[in-house]
Amino acid sequence: MQALWLENRQIRLRSDVPKPLPGPGEALVRVRLAGVCATDLALTRGYLPFRGVPGHELVGVIAAAPDAPGRVGERVVGEINLGCGVCFACRAGRRRHCERREALGIRGRDGAFAEYLTLPLANLHALIDALPDEVAVFSEPLAAALRVRAQRPVLPRERVLLVGAGRLGQLVARTLALTGCRLEVVARHARQRELLAAAGIAWIGEEDPGEQAYDLVVEASGSPAGFALARRAVRPGGTLALKSTYPEEVSLDLSALVVDEVTLLGSRCGDLESALELLRLGRLDPRPLIDARYPLSEAPAALAHAARPGALKILVDCES
Amino acid sequence: MQALWLENRQIRLRSDVPKPLPGPGEALVRVRLAGVCATDLALTRGYLPFRGVPGHELVGVIAAAPDAPGRVGERVVGEINLGCGVCFACRAGRRRHCERREALGIRGRDGAFAEYLTLPLANLHALIDALPDEVAVFSEPLAAALRVRAQRPVLPRERVLLVGAGRLGQLVARTLALTGCRLEVVARHARQRELLAAAGIAWIGEEDPGEQAYDLVVEASGSPAGFALARRAVRPGGTLALKSTYPEEVSLDLSALVVDEVTLLGSRCGDLESALELLRLGRLDPRPLIDARYPLSEAPAALAHAARPGALKILVDCES
Repeated sequence: MQALWLENRQIRLRSDVPKPLPGPGEALVRVRLAGVCATDLALTRGYLPFRGVPGHELVGVIAAAPDAPGRVGERVVGEINLGCGVCFACRAGRRRHCERREALGIRGRDGAFAEYLTLPLANLHALIDALPDEVAVFSEPLAAALRVRAQRPVLPRERVLLVGAGRLGQLVARTLALTGCRLEVVARHARQRELLAAAGIAWIGEEDPGEQAYDLVVEASGSPAGFALARRAVRPGGTLALKSTYPEEVSLDLSALVVDEVTLLGSRCGDLESALELLRLGRLDPRPLIDARYPLSEAPAALAHAARPGALKILVDCES
Repeated sequence: MQALWLENRQIRLRSDVPKPLPGPGEALVRVRLAGVCATDLALTRGYLPFRGVPGHELVGVIAAAPDAPGRVGERVVGEINLGCGVCFACRAGRRRHCERREALGIRGRDGAFAEYLTLPLANLHALIDALPDEVAVFSEPLAAALRVRAQRPVLPRERVLLVGAGRLGQLVARTLALTGCRLEVVARHARQRELLAAAGIAWIGEEDPGEQAYDLVVEASGSPAGFALARRAVRPGGTLALKSTYPEEVSLDLSALVVDEVTLLGSRCGDLESALELLRLGRLDPRPLIDARYPLSEAPAALAHAARPGALKILVDCES
């Protein structure tokens, strides 16, 4: 089958990748649409030693399911983490933190920039017909955006700062805005600002945030400068949630963290059904974030486009 | 009056320090007993640019209170933070995080290694007769130890690791043990281990903690090596509470914090009345932690003793 292939930090299109075989309890999924994420770009810079097919934001149709033939034809999105099911974390219900986990297109399992992929049936969530592919494909990053609210309640009137208005930041902004908090978003590019304004969300420049002024600061820029800005902006006793990974170690004044009693909160993947519910209810429309669509045969160009400064969501049509 | 004086990182005993005058709403307190804390030692190494009388753990008697003469003679302990009362943090009920706060013997106000000090009446908590001075003097550090439980619930059966069994660590260990959690304490010195064992608390060596094994890890060693050990020990999704300040910036892999969804929790001062309640109820007895008592005239020797490796609580009798 055709697929994007990552090896030694190089990506190329291959047409000789074997179609994957579903294991016990798994399904073969015909991928329809896949989204490009910052993690895909980080993989091409060697963030993790993954070799294979990247891509973990997807909409597809179950093409084969030996253990559940009734589900063939179901249109689905996929939970990307596969816990081992037997370790302590899995048994405690924390499969996304299983030490031996596979992660679709990131660790141990080929991903979505391909004609087909496999996932456990339990990871596949059915879509209602009314949810178009180009909306449903946002469910995985939207779940990650929502994760902050699952970890730390966000209340009306709380002062909240979001640093970064890129492809993940835009989704975080929309999930935070729904809470009724007093949200300001540090946005750098004109297009990011326009999208926020169109969604009724206040944007500000990098020089504007008050020092120690926000109850909650969410860092979604992935840059050390963004982290430094976020750290300065959080009030004593406040929370600094980290949504992004960073290319290198960051030096931190832990004593100031203690004296100010700041909570630093690592935040990664979230609950897919929560994200789907928001999309089903129409509480937010991610489609204005789509910058371009490429056919699978042009997937390398899709990743190159996604890497441009200010680029938002790039989609890959895996059926064309 | 006689007092210990800190200036340019040097301490010396002075007998010419003017007796302080209580301001509006304040009381003059005759200090009876004061405890030496790691922060006092850090001040002598230039941790903060404080010049004056150090010391912030105290028991005293109200000697004068122009606005509340009925309180003269009351035996008290003192909340050490003085908020401005008008800033945003103070009005939001977070006086301990007032940007302009004074802190007794640490910032802007002379402290407890003296014959007299002043504090607002509102900061002075009356003691019951049954609580001896040498127990009550632990109320301030015990409040700091209890702070972790106020910030993050600690449940029975949770696996908890405490790194550091010094003067603060011993108190943290006792407050954690009361919760019914499965507590292990990394203790380095024989005397620290004996005290823990006598309190029925399990101690382990630095090589013993499991990796990613604990729901909650409390770092109270104040050393970068202790922080590194604590970081390795916390499980994905767990909490790493920081009770100590550090002499320098610490480099941190923020990406791993995000991927593991670890919560880093800065933790400083706590609620004095909670600590007093524990002491009144006799739920813990801090007296075994007392290593020595010195008269005020030998306060420099008291601080030198407290700086020895493994030294626990050193008290200064300010009436003798």
